[in-house]
Parts: sequence; C-alpha cells; structure tokens
Amino acid sequence: MRIGLDVMGGDFAPDAVIEGAVDSLQHFSDDEKLVLIGDEQCIFNKLSNMQIEPSLFEIVHTTQVIEMGDHPAKAFSQKKNSSIAVGYGMLKNGTLDGFCSAGNTGAMLVGASYTVNVIPGVLRPALATLFPCIDNRNSVIIDVGLNPDCKPDVLVQYGILGSIYAKYVLGTENPSVALLNIGEEESKGTSVVKTAYEMMKEHPEINFVGNIEGNGLFRETMTDVIVCDGFVGNVILKMGEVIHHIYKSRNLQDEYFDRMDWESIGGTPIIGINANVVIGHGISKRKAIMNMILQTRKVVHANLAQHIKEAI
Amino acid sequence: MRIGLDVMGGDFAPDAVIEGAVDSLQHFSDDEKLVLIGDEQCIFNKLSNMQIEPSLFEIVHTTQVIEMGDHPAKAFSQKKNSSIAVGYGMLKNGTLDGFCSAGNTGAMLVGASYTVNVIPGVLRPALATLFPCIDNRNSVIIDVGLNPDCKPDVLVQYGILGSIYAKYVLGTENPSVALLNIGEEESKGTSVVKTAYEMMKEHPEINFVGNIEGNGLFRETMTDVIVCDGFVGNVILKMGEVIHHIYKSRNLQDEYFDRMDWESIGGTPIIGINANVVIGHGISKRKAIMNMILQTRKVVHANLAQHIKEAI
Repeated sequence: MRIGLDVMGGDFAPDAVIEGAVDSLQHFSDDEKLVLIGDEQCIFNKLSNMQIEPSLFEIVHTTQVIEMGDHPAKAFSQKKNSSIAVGYGMLKNGTLDGFCSAGNTGAMLVGASYTVNVIPGVLRPALATLFPCIDNRNSVIIDVGLNPDCKPDVLVQYGILGSIYAKYVLGTENPSVALLNIGEEESKGTSVVKTAYEMMKEHPEINFVGNIEGNGLFRETMTDVIVCDGFVGNVILKMGEVIHHIYKSRNLQDEYFDRMDWESIGGTPIIGINANVVIGHGISKRKAIMNMILQTRKVVHANLAQHIKEAI
Repeated sequence: MRIGLDVMGGDFAPDAVIEGAVDSLQHFSDDEKLVLIGDEQCIFNKLSNMQIEPSLFEIVHTTQVIEMGDHPAKAFSQKKNSSIAVGYGMLKNGTLDGFCSAGNTGAMLVGASYTVNVIPGVLRPALATLFPCIDNRNSVIIDVGLNPDCKPDVLVQYGILGSIYAKYVLGTENPSVALLNIGEEESKGTSVVKTAYEMMKEHPEINFVGNIEGNGLFRETMTDVIVCDGFVGNVILKMGEVIHHIYKSRNLQDEYFDRMDWESIGGTPIIGINANVVIGHGISKRKAIMNMILQTRKVVHANLAQHIKEAI
C-alpha cells in the first residue's frame, strides 16, 4: 500500500508536514509506504535536521507549488508539476492507493473531479467528518462543506454514502442514520428536508431513524450517521472547532472535550470519487498532519472508494 | 409596567413557573407588576405552599390549557379561555406591556400573528437569542427557528431587526453585523447568502462587516449581530445547549462555559410583531422561568416593538 502526501500544502508546509509524516511512520507496517511529494531539497534538508533516514520514505520531486490563495482550477491546470497535480496523476495511474493534502482545498477538489473523476451514479461528492459521541463512538457527519445547496435526492444519497463510511471505515454494523433538522417531527424543517425525510423513510439501504436536532448531537442518542447539507454541516464542524479551542484556552481538562480536538481527526475524505483522497485543515500542524495521514491509511485499508463504487 | 406570565405553559408548569415567578419578583420595582395568568386555585395553592403572599402578584384566572402537543392554530382559536389566548387578548387591549410563556411555541406564534399582528413592513418575524462571547459581550443570533427557508431580503431585514435588538436591549452602539457563512470570501455559500451579502454590503442601516464562519462564533471577533436562516440558527442554538449540558455533566467548572447556560438567558423575543413577547424553552424549570420573565422585562423597558415599528 502506498500513500501519497502533499508536502507543499498547508499554512505550515513543508516543515510541519514533514514532521507529521515522520510521526506517522511508526503506525505503518513493512509493506506500506509513505510517498512524500514535493521539493526534494526541502525534504532532504528537513529530514537531515530531524536526523531521519530519507530512505524510510519514497520521495517524488516536484518543482511547482499551488499556493493557498491560488485560483483552484487555473492553478491545477497550469501547475502540472505541483505536488497536488502530481499526486492526482499518481492516483490515476495506480502508483498511489491514497493521497492527502492540507493545501488548497479548491485545487484538491478540482483534481478529484477532473483527474480521478466522480463515481458514476454519485450525484454530488461530499466531505464527511467525525463527531465524538459521549459514549465513545464517533459519528459521521456528511456533508461538511462541499455542497451548500442540496436537493432532497442528494441528501438521501448522503445517507447511503455516510452509511458505507461508517460501516467500512469505523466498523459500525447497520449504522443508524438521521437527518439533521429543527424538530423531531416529520413535518419540521425546509421543504428540501421534508422531502428528503419522506424518501429516506422508504429507502431499503438506509437504516433511517428520523430527525435529529442540534441538541441530539454528541449525546448517547447521536446516530451513527448524520445527514445535512454542506452549509449547516460546515457551520457545526467549525463551531465544534471553536468550542474545543475555547476549552483548551480555558485550561480545562476533560477526556470527552479532548476528543473534540479536530487535530486528532486530521482530515475528511472526499466521498464519492474514484480514489481515496483525504483533505486536511489548512492550519494543520505536526499532530493534525500525522492524523490526516493515518486517516488516509484507514480509508485505504477500508477500500472506501471501491465499496462506494459497488454500492451506487 | 405590567408583564403577563403564562402559568400553565411548559413541561414543568404550573409549579416551576410559579417558583420562577416568585424568584423574579426581587428584580421588580414598585411600579412594576407581574400578572400570573392561569388556574387561580393552582396558583393560590402553590403560593400558599411557598408561604408567599398572593397580593404580590396580580392573578388572572383562566379555565383552559393549551397543551404542549395541541395543534397550535386549532387550540388557539378554540381555547379562548386559555392562558395563552387571554394573555394575547390583554396585550392587545393594552392591559399588558409584555407577555411570556414556556408553553406551546406554535400557539404563541399563532397568537403573535393573529392577535397582535406583524408590524407592517416586517417581511417575516424572527426569534433572536443571545450567544456569549469570550470577551463578556453577548451577541444576537437572528433567526433561531421561525423561518427555516429565508429569501435574501428577509436575511437583510434580520440584519436591521438584530441591530435594533442589540442597540436597545443590550445597549450596543452601532452594532456590527455579520452573515453566518461557510467562508469569509464574498463568493462563498448558497445563492441566497451570496445575494444577501451583496444587499447588506450596500445597506445604509446595517453596519455590515462581512461573513462569519462557525469558528468565528464565541471569540473576540464575534460580531454583535449574526444573521442566519432559522434552520442553521436553530441547529447552532441547540448545539450550544448540548455542549453546555455535557460541560455540566462532566463536572467542569469554568466562568465562560457557565455563561453558555441557556437557563440564564431564559427566552427569546418574537421580533417584528406589535408587542413585546418572549418565548421560553418547553423544558424550563425555576431558574429558566425567572430569566424568561426578566428577559421580557428588559425587552419591555427597551421598548423593542416600538423601536422596530419606527425603524421599519
């Protein structure tokens, strides 16, 4: 198994990315390889500073960098020797089994759509993240930002995609699915959500248990999969982030609140494309990068893209 | 000043409501009266148990109760001697300056629309709540549940309504207003939010500072007013609620997290109607009821409905 890492992407690249890569290695087995994609001089210098043997990695040299502020589509098509473009090329020709980056999210999405492509039958790809539940489970929230305006059929399919993620990556059998809404009753919410409710209720591939409200998150009652559009999903993902930030800044100590740390999740897979790709937060430092790599490894082990291809 | 309280509304009515009423009295001045609206025998019995002199209140006897599960419009029109219907009648004929209830929210909204009416020019009334900011301010979030599907012009007007609330109830001069969105850039979000951004940017009555993301909430950077549709607003309101619940259940102690307690806010006014009405949470107990009453008192003192009538 070979996982590619974009060494040049992220606010603290390449240093923090290489540090995270080094930390992740201890979790790799002998037949697994981490491929560092980026400026090889940067990589060699940093590894030498860290007194790490470069041969522990495979290194693929690139000469261009897609910056965080670059226009995604333009940068992706013009910077053919950037780490993101090269990574996607390797995914496409089969020399990588997974790829991850904390770099320009837009460019990562462009690469997903134009290089490895959306799986036929998938209406809209999504980003899925994990929310910690008080009873030690993790729930999948889908979508957290790719598709702010969702039609009902897209939400219904997110129920299926989220279930596959929960089943194969988290190992949850017959995952329960709820629709995020503003009331428990079937008649609540926008017309889109009401229609989605009707459709999910009847769907044979979704273990649908009804609506979940904002105060149903995190508790024992939190379902295994929570479906929402990318607007509300993104807002609650980031609200969780700031709650954890404040918790840390107040010097509180608690096992549960520790688990809300986005840095320990590391990244969210792009669900619904023909490859296993994980996107990290732009502000990722060493720890978050390590966990993004390990998340990618999990997604590859679970064969996520393949399972979705078979199910859709 | 006379404030009416629906004694029969809420999961723990009438006992917890009367207890909250008793607690609130210490904050009332001599020329202010709390009017208990409900079954007088219940009220007398409870006050007698608490060894409280009934003449401290005014008591208006009602014979019917709108239950939490009743159909709002039907119950409101059929139960003319319910505490909610009588309270709205008193608001309308001017014998009350404000009214609050933790009872059937739907029936409270029906009463708002059909008895005291929406202020001409207000596109859609809204519920506004307060979110605590780390720097000790409170921010207004509008809407938190009345209007899950918002058109751009409704969001823009929420910016104005929220500003009036912040100015007159919280005393914030020239309140800053942001649009809740999934990115800071103008081009982010749904088509509705993008159009609202364009309109708010140019609006002379809104001190618009741009988009705010979910991780901008609670921090020093949190604006005085945050505008969103009632779907996302309701989800984040309730997510705040569960975060505080978990914080308490973990036996943590922190001044900031204590301020996230919805029970210390008590209730949210219905903004945009011809009267000062505050709605409490159905699960309100003694403390939340007290704060709902005090919130109503503040809204009446601020003359909120009148200021909105003049501004719109």
